[in-house]
Amino acid sequence: MVTYKLTVAYDGTEFCGWQTQPGQRTVQETVEAAWMAITGEQVRVTSTSRTDSGVHARRQAVGVETASQLPAAKILTGLNAKLPEDVLVVSIENAPTGFHATYDAIGKRYRYQLHNDRRRPLFDLPYVWHVPQPLDIEAMQRAAQALVGTHDFASFQSAGSERESTVRTIFSVDILQGRGEDAAQVWIEVEGNGFLYNMVRIIVGTLVDIGIGRKPESWAAEVLAAVDRRVAGQTAPPQGLFLLNVNY
Amino acid sequence: MVTYKLTVAYDGTEFCGWQTQPGQRTVQETVEAAWMAITGEQVRVTSTSRTDSGVHARRQAVGVETASQLPAAKILTGLNAKLPEDVLVVSIENAPTGFHATYDAIGKRYRYQLHNDRRRPLFDLPYVWHVPQPLDIEAMQRAAQALVGTHDFASFQSAGSERESTVRTIFSVDILQGRGEDAAQVWIEVEGNGFLYNMVRIIVGTLVDIGIGRKPESWAAEVLAAVDRRVAGQTAPPQGLFLLNVNY
Repeated sequence: MVTYKLTVAYDGTEFCGWQTQPGQRTVQETVEAAWMAITGEQVRVTSTSRTDSGVHARRQAVGVETASQLPAAKILTGLNAKLPEDVLVVSIENAPTGFHATYDAIGKRYRYQLHNDRRRPLFDLPYVWHVPQPLDIEAMQRAAQALVGTHDFASFQSAGSERESTVRTIFSVDILQGRGEDAAQVWIEVEGNGFLYNMVRIIVGTLVDIGIGRKPESWAAEVLAAVDRRVAGQTAPPQGLFLLNVNY
Repeated sequence: MVTYKLTVAYDGTEFCGWQTQPGQRTVQETVEAAWMAITGEQVRVTSTSRTDSGVHARRQAVGVETASQLPAAKILTGLNAKLPEDVLVVSIENAPTGFHATYDAIGKRYRYQLHNDRRRPLFDLPYVWHVPQPLDIEAMQRAAQALVGTHDFASFQSAGSERESTVRTIFSVDILQGRGEDAAQVWIEVEGNGFLYNMVRIIVGTLVDIGIGRKPESWAAEVLAAVDRRVAGQTAPPQGLFLLNVNY
């Protein structure tokens, strides 16, 4: 048996998220079907994250254990030929025996893309949340710093999660704005050791409420301290969210 | 009567180009229908360019003469509310009486977007031409300089054009490559005082033949000197082409 780490990118628009669910089009099932088509082998892949319906990934790590004798380069080319247009294997590399993409990850980085302009988005429509009100980026950046560190993030979790602990460590929150003709582009990048269900999207919804002036700058810290989902902001819509990468 | 200059952006994927044609979905007809919906007035707009099926625009200038008393800001908001997702009016401004978007333009700038990577494109699939072979960008840049200046571009024109003269002036050709994770992004930007039918796409096809080593660097100059379409390279596909802006 050989263990590989695949790095997979996908456009989540037409997927019901990562994880296989009966009767739904999911990325996991699509990758496993392509694997079957080129190796004849039914595998069960592992992954760092179970992205939600409509969420995208640029470099998601996927583990697979295989008896196939095909060279890695042939597997890469074969998978990309079989996979539909909205999934791409970026790279394949050997991983240590027993590598498990979920348990071995030490951190993940997400980007949430906002389109901040009075006018609606055009070319990036499937990949942004349109916020027409002017955003106070500096207030958002300052407010976000309250979330950095090890905290109980229970306020930033949707119902439906099964995690035992709601304590996580956020390494950084960066808010980046485009220049010139890209000035409408506002990216919120969050890196941490793990994330609760909808955590990034609730952080973004909360920071946007601060950015448009609906809530004061101190509110992010108050929401965190409340340890109660009902006090946080809205959950930002899925199409702006990208899993950027996973660190091991 | 008031004359306005609209700046219009559109995703050309689902359009049969700019110009109204019976039984086809075109941008011109779509903009005129939105104008009718908000002012009740049937106008005939003018434009700098009649983009082909599948070609996009970021800042296309469109002239319209109107008897409507609506303030410009209301027209802008109204048009964007009525227009479908793939067309956006970026701005509206007063233009001198008699302004004609076609005849008054002194130059236009196009960008052609290549995806230069062994792996196929994912998120930018609708907006690039995928060239999997490595491109020699410097050879392309040097070859392109032969096209700058005033020349007879008959070699770079598709059949079906009705222009009387095939002499045009190219002000510049710039080839830009992304860095880091954007290294697959290669843009060819061409600015000139006017363009023949498919001219940018044939220039791109010719430069790509040089970039992949199928033709020598000197070939662009030879094609130009031949004044014969049959000697030029392939016509690059429409989805990589953007009209960037128009100068008056």
